[in-house]
Amino acid sequence: MSFAGRHIGPSDDDQRRMLETVGHGSLDELMDAAIPEVIRWHGSLDLPAAASEPETIAELRALAERNTVAASMIGLGYYGTHTPAVIRRNVLENPAWYTAYTPYQPEISQGRLEALLNFQTMVTDLTGLATANASMLDEGTAAAEAMTLARRASKSKSMVYAVDADTLPQTLAVLRTRAEPLDIAVTVVDLDNEALPDEYFGLHLQYPGASGAVRDHAALVAAAHEAGALVTVAADLLALTLLRPPGEIAADIAAGTTQRFGVPMGFGGPHAGYLAVRAGLERMLPGRLVGVSRDADGAPAYRLALQTREQHIRREKATSNICTAQVLLAVMASMYAVYHGPDGLRAIASRVAGRAATLAAGLRAGGVPLAADDFFDTVTAVVPGRASAIVEAAAERGVNLWLASPDTVGIACDELSSEAHLEAVWDAFGVSAVAAVSPRVPLERTSDFLTHPVFHSHHSETAMLRYLRRLADKDYALDRGMIPLGSCTMKLNATTEMEPVTWPAFADMHPFAPASQTAGYTALISQLEGWLAEITGYDAVSVQPNAGSQGELAGLLAIREYHLGRGEAHRDVCLIPSSAHGTNAASAVMAGMRVVVVACDAEGNVDLVDLDRLVDLHRDSLAAIMVTYPSTHGVYETGIASLCAKVHDAGGQVYVDGANLNALVGFAKPGRFGADVSHLNLHKTFCIPHGGGGPGVGPVAVRAHLAPYLPTAVSAAPFGSAGILPISWAYLRMMGPDGLARATGVAVLAANYVAARLRAHYPVLYSGNKGLVAHECILDLRPLTKATGVTVDDVAKRLIDYGFHAPTMSFPVAGTLMVEPTESEDLAELDRFCDAMIAIRAEISAVESWGADNPLRNAPHTAAMVTADDWDHPYPRSLAAYPDGVDRASKYWPPVRRIDGAYGDRNLVCACPPPEAFA
Amino acid sequence: MSFAGRHIGPSDDDQRRMLETVGHGSLDELMDAAIPEVIRWHGSLDLPAAASEPETIAELRALAERNTVAASMIGLGYYGTHTPAVIRRNVLENPAWYTAYTPYQPEISQGRLEALLNFQTMVTDLTGLATANASMLDEGTAAAEAMTLARRASKSKSMVYAVDADTLPQTLAVLRTRAEPLDIAVTVVDLDNEALPDEYFGLHLQYPGASGAVRDHAALVAAAHEAGALVTVAADLLALTLLRPPGEIAADIAAGTTQRFGVPMGFGGPHAGYLAVRAGLERMLPGRLVGVSRDADGAPAYRLALQTREQHIRREKATSNICTAQVLLAVMASMYAVYHGPDGLRAIASRVAGRAATLAAGLRAGGVPLAADDFFDTVTAVVPGRASAIVEAAAERGVNLWLASPDTVGIACDELSSEAHLEAVWDAFGVSAVAAVSPRVPLERTSDFLTHPVFHSHHSETAMLRYLRRLADKDYALDRGMIPLGSCTMKLNATTEMEPVTWPAFADMHPFAPASQTAGYTALISQLEGWLAEITGYDAVSVQPNAGSQGELAGLLAIREYHLGRGEAHRDVCLIPSSAHGTNAASAVMAGMRVVVVACDAEGNVDLVDLDRLVDLHRDSLAAIMVTYPSTHGVYETGIASLCAKVHDAGGQVYVDGANLNALVGFAKPGRFGADVSHLNLHKTFCIPHGGGGPGVGPVAVRAHLAPYLPTAVSAAPFGSAGILPISWAYLRMMGPDGLARATGVAVLAANYVAARLRAHYPVLYSGNKGLVAHECILDLRPLTKATGVTVDDVAKRLIDYGFHAPTMSFPVAGTLMVEPTESEDLAELDRFCDAMIAIRAEISAVESWGADNPLRNAPHTAAMVTADDWDHPYPRSLAAYPDGVDRASKYWPPVRRIDGAYGDRNLVCACPPPEAFA
Repeated sequence: MSFAGRHIGPSDDDQRRMLETVGHGSLDELMDAAIPEVIRWHGSLDLPAAASEPETIAELRALAERNTVAASMIGLGYYGTHTPAVIRRNVLENPAWYTAYTPYQPEISQGRLEALLNFQTMVTDLTGLATANASMLDEGTAAAEAMTLARRASKSKSMVYAVDADTLPQTLAVLRTRAEPLDIAVTVVDLDNEALPDEYFGLHLQYPGASGAVRDHAALVAAAHEAGALVTVAADLLALTLLRPPGEIAADIAAGTTQRFGVPMGFGGPHAGYLAVRAGLERMLPGRLVGVSRDADGAPAYRLALQTREQHIRREKATSNICTAQVLLAVMASMYAVYHGPDGLRAIASRVAGRAATLAAGLRAGGVPLAADDFFDTVTAVVPGRASAIVEAAAERGVNLWLASPDTVGIACDELSSEAHLEAVWDAFGVSAVAAVSPRVPLERTSDFLTHPVFHSHHSETAMLRYLRRLADKDYALDRGMIPLGSCTMKLNATTEMEPVTWPAFADMHPFAPASQTAGYTALISQLEGWLAEITGYDAVSVQPNAGSQGELAGLLAIREYHLGRGEAHRDVCLIPSSAHGTNAASAVMAGMRVVVVACDAEGNVDLVDLDRLVDLHRDSLAAIMVTYPSTHGVYETGIASLCAKVHDAGGQVYVDGANLNALVGFAKPGRFGADVSHLNLHKTFCIPHGGGGPGVGPVAVRAHLAPYLPTAVSAAPFGSAGILPISWAYLRMMGPDGLARATGVAVLAANYVAARLRAHYPVLYSGNKGLVAHECILDLRPLTKATGVTVDDVAKRLIDYGFHAPTMSFPVAGTLMVEPTESEDLAELDRFCDAMIAIRAEISAVESWGADNPLRNAPHTAAMVTADDWDHPYPRSLAAYPDGVDRASKYWPPVRRIDGAYGDRNLVCACPPPEAFA
Repeated sequence: MSFAGRHIGPSDDDQRRMLETVGHGSLDELMDAAIPEVIRWHGSLDLPAAASEPETIAELRALAERNTVAASMIGLGYYGTHTPAVIRRNVLENPAWYTAYTPYQPEISQGRLEALLNFQTMVTDLTGLATANASMLDEGTAAAEAMTLARRASKSKSMVYAVDADTLPQTLAVLRTRAEPLDIAVTVVDLDNEALPDEYFGLHLQYPGASGAVRDHAALVAAAHEAGALVTVAADLLALTLLRPPGEIAADIAAGTTQRFGVPMGFGGPHAGYLAVRAGLERMLPGRLVGVSRDADGAPAYRLALQTREQHIRREKATSNICTAQVLLAVMASMYAVYHGPDGLRAIASRVAGRAATLAAGLRAGGVPLAADDFFDTVTAVVPGRASAIVEAAAERGVNLWLASPDTVGIACDELSSEAHLEAVWDAFGVSAVAAVSPRVPLERTSDFLTHPVFHSHHSETAMLRYLRRLADKDYALDRGMIPLGSCTMKLNATTEMEPVTWPAFADMHPFAPASQTAGYTALISQLEGWLAEITGYDAVSVQPNAGSQGELAGLLAIREYHLGRGEAHRDVCLIPSSAHGTNAASAVMAGMRVVVVACDAEGNVDLVDLDRLVDLHRDSLAAIMVTYPSTHGVYETGIASLCAKVHDAGGQVYVDGANLNALVGFAKPGRFGADVSHLNLHKTFCIPHGGGGPGVGPVAVRAHLAPYLPTAVSAAPFGSAGILPISWAYLRMMGPDGLARATGVAVLAANYVAARLRAHYPVLYSGNKGLVAHECILDLRPLTKATGVTVDDVAKRLIDYGFHAPTMSFPVAGTLMVEPTESEDLAELDRFCDAMIAIRAEISAVESWGADNPLRNAPHTAAMVTADDWDHPYPRSLAAYPDGVDRASKYWPPVRRIDGAYGDRNLVCACPPPEAFA
């Protein structure tokens, strides 16, 4: 069977039956009816014909062989690390972890929430700060978030952000990208030789410095606080096992990466960044924050805390646009800490520091001066005029060094550095080997860390394996059943797509490895960018943005620069329909734009009358409109072409959010129906798994006129999350043009099938041509809620009892559920879902007879609840546990009852609770 | 942390606490006390010092790179096949599947039992026979089992077994090995040119033949039946999707391999062999047979059927010694059929047949005659004098062919054969390419197969993934918790050991690939054999036996040949203690020996007085004694040296069963304390996972005088299950001499710790020096059973409610439980187990108050039972579900209640039941 036949759930027979229900004769006919001709593209994508799974693996192996993995001593935030095999196999290669969704349904996400709480505890313990989030996209963007947090929190009126000259170059680049549209002035200060500015709202320090130097920052922090500024320390977590942590010198914020905690370099990503703050700043943290709350029985339970800070609630008033994080990688890093424990981490750090000390001793003995006396793992050798030759000589010996300048070479040791590597380096420098010396640790850490039992209980592989299984078993992911989340496109993440990710030739590449060693990666990336351009109809694609939010920002910054380039700096209004993803508005603000909201009409479409009014009103200052297509209501709006024309006529640019591209591939190209720029979500349409809330990849695609204006530093690494691009490459390679179009058709068919089956039970809100929805449909619960008090929450939680993840709740319309079945669910699963929804509808009708103590309100039901000795509910246990014939032999039991989110927000706890809490 | 620190569960602190409980000051002191000095070896194993996990992976990669994987068109029972990635990742690489034990506790094994029932259904459907087992070790041994089955079932008095001359050469070799000691005369018959013998009890046919020829065997079957003989057809299952199956010409038995159903060649194994029989022979089948029975609620439930046929019950009267099977591989093959379904399999077979037809057309057009006109996937080209040159020319073009004779070349097509491969072959023959032709199928199959819904419901990858997860979730394996099975050594199967198994350079090698392509494998095998010789103190090791039972047979055959070689053919008595594994006796019979049972004394040791008596009685005919050391009672017997001497003095050889080698490694060497031969179980002591009941590897180790007598064909492939040898290699490489000895010490410590904690609650049967046990201990339930009626079964099933796999039941002493904790369980898990046993002891005391309706008798409790609307048991639901503080949030629920094995044996059903059965 072709791969498309494996990827697409419904068989040909199933599709015929579904078409009958929907009332169309064929997929083609359905798509002709559903998609407005005004946007329709009739053609066959110019992509290579589908390859089989073994052919695709063979091609990827050939690409992998074009990469050369050398020993990396480049450093700069990316280090060789040994991923414990038990973690690689049971997290990174385990669909129970990688196919999970963001833990917005916390009752069925306790496993990964616990892992993330471990992550937060690890970060706060190591940095010595009070609260960490989980997680940031990389060190560069974490530093940028720290900068804007400092701006929000500082009482200083200054717009100057002072940055340590010894900061990682890619971090500095991201800071500049993010500062410019916000009118923040980034001022670089050589801390060894220059004074701080007179006024500044924040100070960014690198610890240890990019050069490897370890400086005592205590006095700087005190000075900054006197100036009313906040201090961010970008700190290396492994170093912090030996060095005094930022929290102990009263730093306000710490930011960085957790990559070297067992996460492969992957040519730059994905890795989990981190951000931690001192007490008092926790409610200003951007991004996702896991907190401890309690369930309906009062038992401790985890969930995302303080969600009201986030962009999907606060929109243009949000503190940040960050949405997708790096959950899968954060889980890995946290498990690395769990597996090694504090003593193990200290031992690794000491070994690394010992290598660096030995390396330094050899260089010094050979007469090579070093830039700094105090260092942890990295030294900078001063070799006037010789740097380039030495770096080359080392590369010939299989070791990559960092050409810091024509006169200096950076050499970073890591967990994988061996004596042989040191010898190669010495040889490249032309100095002799010396015996190992003990490291001299400056600013020695004296405080304990990772004292919680979880960091002391899973040090044997058997114990670790079971811990990972136990956590995974608490969660619901795609490997259990459907996750019909509107807008999130939870479809198959095929194993053949996933396998290459952990091949060493892709996993172990440093992002700054010399181009001669990365030919396989660059060929793969350039093919993928080309294929995405063909699919979207744009002229240029960049895969650098490592989340959709970053793609949005990159696209909007291109628009901003375009206007600036044309001398139209005054164009700063971004029109955004009321139905948009909150991220859109947050991104627009970050791009220095003013958000103006466009109303939707009764059919859910952008109100073209309101649009006319607003375009008129802002004609001179109109920068852009940002719309999603098909709309977030799951409808192919027919007005899209006219909308584009109106905005263009007023001098604005059109941004089409690619979140719903799964409804377009092969049938319409945004770059051809009027848009100027889009971001895509490779973790939606192009099969990168959601990983429990990340990684994602959010390429930005533009028409030619915007291409020169794309920013080059929206994320830290040149190609963002390069390590997972083989997934989307393999998907496109195996589907081919026909398979891709078929997938789109079946996705639309599935949504219309669900709509057709459920319409009699729940009103389907909004539809387009001929009453058809696009790839998702909105079920309106509001009349039922009004009549019975049963809420979308109740239905969502009751679906857990039936063995389902809930659809998207209350987005884009409060009080509704948005269902996106995708093309990968087969008819049996679609029917199981529809049957469950219909059965729940009947339960809603019966609520009156039960009163407030009903199975919807009490959902989800845990095994502990249903097996309790006493049962005093007015409905039977069997209805609680096995409604509507749920299979008794393979029932999924949630580990906790419904969680009280507000309690946790009032009593914020964001680190591992003591074991007694569970007694 | 060193790998040994990961492999060994208890930390140093834990070990100190355990030693205190046991009453010894240090591990060394404990081992000095436990191990009799008479066998003790004081020294450090001459093995390479421990390598780290990344170092070991690097060394294995270097070995892998010394293998060259060419396209294989050798055939002969081993074919290129595409393992669906979803099956590789979620079965072969998933600890939930590979760390499971044999499904002797069926209530917690329903997932793999269902998969095996699918396997049996697949085999019976494809062969057209009534009943298949699950599974045989390979085609060669399956054919040998068919031969002895035919001997048992035939009414003919003849001892002649007629074998098709077109049989696979390795099958013929195994038949000869197995026939000789049983006085069966294997007579090879060229079916095209020779008549069958006058008298024979059985006939073995190959279908298609090794040459590729497809012959109509119908007349031969009829003739054989007239002669009172049974007919075995060794049939290719992929061919049977197109060809008339053996069952339709009234064949009695079918045997073969399922390798090409998605199981990598692995240089010869492991793969699942199959054996199927017509109605009437099912109770004569050797090995494990999965059957449908019912649980305490009357619901369908699976378990091993007719176990009374097996060696562990019938001992020397068993039909076979087969014990470990190939469950993991059988699961993979069955899932391949589930994923492709009948249409998919037929499509693959047609494509393969098409390639062969095209290949043949090209050869014929080029003037190369073929040996047969009718074929499926393999042709034999007749090229007088040129065969060797052509095979070499093809190898140069990247394709391996089979040098069938100096004048003939065999060429087999498979699922992976491409046009390019055909072109390479044509080129090697010096003929021109031709266009593809359609296959002409002789003896076309007209009957349906795989009609059960399971073969039609999981064809999308999403559906397959979920089916695999659902099945895995029903089962209990090492990834959930301890499996304290005495004699089975269920310890860590580390991920680093497992990863290389699925590397293409190890996975995709044909066993008959030219030596120039297999240097990595042969180096690895020879190192491993050397290390095992060092550990055991023997002079030569062969890894060929692909299960412990085969190792036993190989060792006994060496003894037999040794006596024959010395002109002492009359030596045929094998002394076996009453406490021995049943397999020992069954193997001795297969080696042509008479079994004489030696009594055990009150302390459980071999009764040396009885031994003296029996040695005297059989002095002239004594061939061997077969003992396990430490004994199956888990005791280091002090009399072992004296036992060896007595037997040697009488001219016998000493066979030490290596099942308990985990208690000796680094402390004693059987080859030095008196034994002449042992088999080892790499799937016990050396970390090959049990795979749910296989694969195993049972190397045979001998002293120099026996080495010349080792048989060379106990299994089909030259190196048996070569594909999994990297596991044991990696284990030894990472543990090093010190780690191995420490593991032994901690294994003994753990057993003594459990004995010490439980002794006050259950009498510990048997101990040795200073009251110490070896690596396992026997808990005597008999007094409690007598007093309360609570049986070992009740305790074993109740342990499921507590979240444990039961210890070994009623072996070697009926009415007892034998506990082997191994070194890999940490103190927390050991304590959890001891606590559960103590809590169960308290429940036993309370049985009187409950009467017959008690939680022990009703165990295990399913969620369905405990959540039932009605509960009329005298104990509360909470005690049923969560005894003694079982964690409510991560409770393992068995999918069925206690299974009634006898019901299923009376009503034998060994294929998938219809879905309605579960209604």
